Amino acid sequence: MSTSIYDRDLPKTPANYQPLTPLSFLARAGAVYRDHTAIIHGRQRITYSEFYARARRLASALGKAGIKRGETVSALLANTPAMLEAHYGVPMAGAVLNTLNTRLDAAIIAFSLEHAETRLVLVDTEFSGLMKEALALLKGKKPIVIDYVDSEFVPDGARLGAIDYESFISGGDPDFAWVMPEDEWDAISLNYTSGTTGNPKGVVCHHRGAYLIAQGNVLTQQMQRHPVYLWTLPMFHCNGWGYPWSMSVMGGTHVTLRAVRAKAIWQALAEHKVTHLCGAPIVMATILNAPEDEKTKLPHAVEFTTAAAPPPEVVLARMAEAGFNVTHVYGLTETYGPAVVNDWDSAWDALAPEARAAKKARQGVNYIPLEALTVMDPETMTRVPADGETLGEVMFRGNIVMKGYLKNKQASEDAFKGGWFHSGDLAVLHPDGYVQLKDRSKDIIISGGENISSIEVEEVLYKHPAVQAAAVVAKADEKWGESPCAFIEIKPGASVTADEMLDWCRKGLARYKVPKHVVFAELPKTSTGKIQKFKLREMAKNV
Amino acid sequence: MSTSIYDRDLPKTPANYQPLTPLSFLARAGAVYRDHTAIIHGRQRITYSEFYARARRLASALGKAGIKRGETVSALLANTPAMLEAHYGVPMAGAVLNTLNTRLDAAIIAFSLEHAETRLVLVDTEFSGLMKEALALLKGKKPIVIDYVDSEFVPDGARLGAIDYESFISGGDPDFAWVMPEDEWDAISLNYTSGTTGNPKGVVCHHRGAYLIAQGNVLTQQMQRHPVYLWTLPMFHCNGWGYPWSMSVMGGTHVTLRAVRAKAIWQALAEHKVTHLCGAPIVMATILNAPEDEKTKLPHAVEFTTAAAPPPEVVLARMAEAGFNVTHVYGLTETYGPAVVNDWDSAWDALAPEARAAKKARQGVNYIPLEALTVMDPETMTRVPADGETLGEVMFRGNIVMKGYLKNKQASEDAFKGGWFHSGDLAVLHPDGYVQLKDRSKDIIISGGENISSIEVEEVLYKHPAVQAAAVVAKADEKWGESPCAFIEIKPGASVTADEMLDWCRKGLARYKVPKHVVFAELPKTSTGKIQKFKLREMAKNV
Repeated sequence: MSTSIYDRDLPKTPANYQPLTPLSFLARAGAVYRDHTAIIHGRQRITYSEFYARARRLASALGKAGIKRGETVSALLANTPAMLEAHYGVPMAGAVLNTLNTRLDAAIIAFSLEHAETRLVLVDTEFSGLMKEALALLKGKKPIVIDYVDSEFVPDGARLGAIDYESFISGGDPDFAWVMPEDEWDAISLNYTSGTTGNPKGVVCHHRGAYLIAQGNVLTQQMQRHPVYLWTLPMFHCNGWGYPWSMSVMGGTHVTLRAVRAKAIWQALAEHKVTHLCGAPIVMATILNAPEDEKTKLPHAVEFTTAAAPPPEVVLARMAEAGFNVTHVYGLTETYGPAVVNDWDSAWDALAPEARAAKKARQGVNYIPLEALTVMDPETMTRVPADGETLGEVMFRGNIVMKGYLKNKQASEDAFKGGWFHSGDLAVLHPDGYVQLKDRSKDIIISGGENISSIEVEEVLYKHPAVQAAAVVAKADEKWGESPCAFIEIKPGASVTADEMLDWCRKGLARYKVPKHVVFAELPKTSTGKIQKFKLREMAKNV
Repeated sequence: MSTSIYDRDLPKTPANYQPLTPLSFLARAGAVYRDHTAIIHGRQRITYSEFYARARRLASALGKAGIKRGETVSALLANTPAMLEAHYGVPMAGAVLNTLNTRLDAAIIAFSLEHAETRLVLVDTEFSGLMKEALALLKGKKPIVIDYVDSEFVPDGARLGAIDYESFISGGDPDFAWVMPEDEWDAISLNYTSGTTGNPKGVVCHHRGAYLIAQGNVLTQQMQRHPVYLWTLPMFHCNGWGYPWSMSVMGGTHVTLRAVRAKAIWQALAEHKVTHLCGAPIVMATILNAPEDEKTKLPHAVEFTTAAAPPPEVVLARMAEAGFNVTHVYGLTETYGPAVVNDWDSAWDALAPEARAAKKARQGVNYIPLEALTVMDPETMTRVPADGETLGEVMFRGNIVMKGYLKNKQASEDAFKGGWFHSGDLAVLHPDGYVQLKDRSKDIIISGGENISSIEVEEVLYKHPAVQAAAVVAKADEKWGESPCAFIEIKPGASVTADEMLDWCRKGLARYKVPKHVVFAELPKTSTGKIQKFKLREMAKNV
């Protein structure tokens, strides 16, 4: 290449090369859509010019408070305007945003603050008690604390810091000349995974990836100009899958909700003409199970993007009836949230409901900004046959894969072994190239030398009309090594016996996959609605 | 930054960093939308899996023919499947695609081939004569010639090379393991500007910019999945503004037309349910002036993107009536085509037609992938006031600005002086930040020390009911230095005198801006429909 005429005298200059960063989207929206509503929060309305000015005030104030490039600013915030402003203002100061899960305990919050070397933390006064406890656990220098008082919703929160958020940013310059990242590879955010064992790992994302996932969401959701996005997904979860940045691309309106409550969701859908929202299956359940008098007729089709578990047939049908179009996506904190999409072929619309649900249950294909997605044998790093049967590990490659784990060289190297990100999720590759998850590596049950996919067993359980939720884990077994143990939540008013469930399983599963034990219990879930299998594994020991 | 924790042990790896290239879009579309129609050409239908396979065949065949990374492959092709395949297959071989304007003369084609050091050229047999003449003019080694025979439309073209396109690519491997660019800054295409004086300049574009403009088109045109794009814009013009790559993002269908003819356009609109097309105002005129029996009722609103001149009020009204929504964009070959968009505020829909046309006439704001757009005094490099009056030069900055001019270091440095790309176009900045072109620097008329915008005078002329087309240029004037000279094309059947035109101008213009001379004549136009002011300046000398 060095002799090519195209390599001569054609260098990068500021005119033709600028770092990719989602901050540019807000700069553009602040200029082009200046009077359009950017944020609706209760009775508050913030236009794009105000949003941009407030983000710059925050960046400027952070600089005045001594925050420097490449330092961490943490946020223990609900879905509020301050949380959106932090997604721009913190990186506009050159700093890195670390959002904290508000449902974690003080010890993990303290671990995160210490590991991230947080210099300043924004705290919603609803969570003052939690943060106070966490700060007390810190051994080193304490971060600066800024209290965010969401007075419309949290009138009497206790103050922890010397200054509240509004006073803090009012000391910042609304015309602050924020700086572009020095390099698009610079970190923009840090998200701790809610590890089930050991300490959480700090997933570092960069400006380039954030720019690409933001546009990827818009392209995948086929957003028109000025979408209206309802925040039912917590922004502390993978930076809200990039949607805080996506909305600025198209001059969209954020409708922020502090909590996922059916009444507030239905009210917002109707009042603000919401076009898009995202959430785990629990959000769909909340929407559908609302009392009839809280529901409204939707003014137009609403796009609902879901992840974490395949949407069951009955839920899809009820969502469609209620006016929602459901898209199924899949990803990890390490892939900026959604990196795989069930790209829907309109030919599948003609299928019978069950077959349609089976198509929808597949996780799908690479998101537009993801270079490649595949399923491989992690030992040989060869692709599994596209036969819909052979299990392998889901592997990702591309610009929406994290920079790596903070201060954890070994974990980063392990994750990227062989030039692919190893997800730890087991899946098959269908003949049409769609990926379907079968299990987390650690959730697979190995019984008599045979692999049993817990998801496959769960799918059969879910089809039983009395089952509300189900999870299957491995239980140590003297004879088989491991055996499947099923935990089942029954629908209110329904009843079923363990024997009936086992009969049901025998009809739908190979003999060796049928659970040896059935337990009826409420399933333990994480703050984001995921079933905590590690707790079930503990419970299984005592069955 | 070197002390930041985020700079430690978080290197780029193949897992988390891949060059941005539009070639990835076809790889994805070829897998995800494999059976969807990618190209419709006459009776031919090519699916995405076939399109991807044919592009890989081409890349493979080029490699076998000895084409190496960073070498030039030229194409003298109409809007055909081969031209689309070249947009992928040539860069998949690591080579650079140089499309040639089929309406140029042999001397300029020969200059381009020589300057680009073209190693291989694809020639549509319709243009064999032109290429033969050009090849005869070459002093050095002649390129390999591959004939493209579009037998459905051009049955008897003469062959120039030893092999035709279909035979050539049939020798290539449909599963060819094409390589990603070594760097996203690598060149992907070379487009010669049709310079009005001196030799053409070779504009070099790179993979990164092509990726971003391709997505920028989709975002700006708010394309849904599977758009249908009608090719009325020549692909040799700025790589068809990036649309050969845009369609792969959303699995869209290309409908290729060899020539812009009203009947074929209306037929395609109806038969293939076209959703999008682009073109200069001449294409709108062709569509609107078709005989009534060739027009059809459109099945849905069609998005028409226009550039080169602001769409006049009457054209907008007639286009709306015919079922088209017109978007006005602006850009240069140096900015990959469209880099500025008249981002339409729906509040303007309520304006009276004239005021609405005035809003639509403004070129607008930066395209989503363009980092920044402004109007500056080129001497001081300070922004002009946003008063809608002060003239300055339009300046661009961002990742959709060219790499530079090939083998022309001085021109590149001049173009990028001060960290901005100098467009040579004069404009004002409106209070709402929208840019409006007033003239090319060289088209401005300086009369008695006052700047006269030829566009402003032309706007007044265009409003006269008898005027079909108008252009105003400077004519040397003993007293004033220069004076405006108007050239006017009259509508068929209409009539008007020079005195009547001058009276008309006096009502709408400051005295010093009124043309000193009015000439009725057919206006000379370039192959892409632009009026050739340099020819009019010659003609003005003899007035």
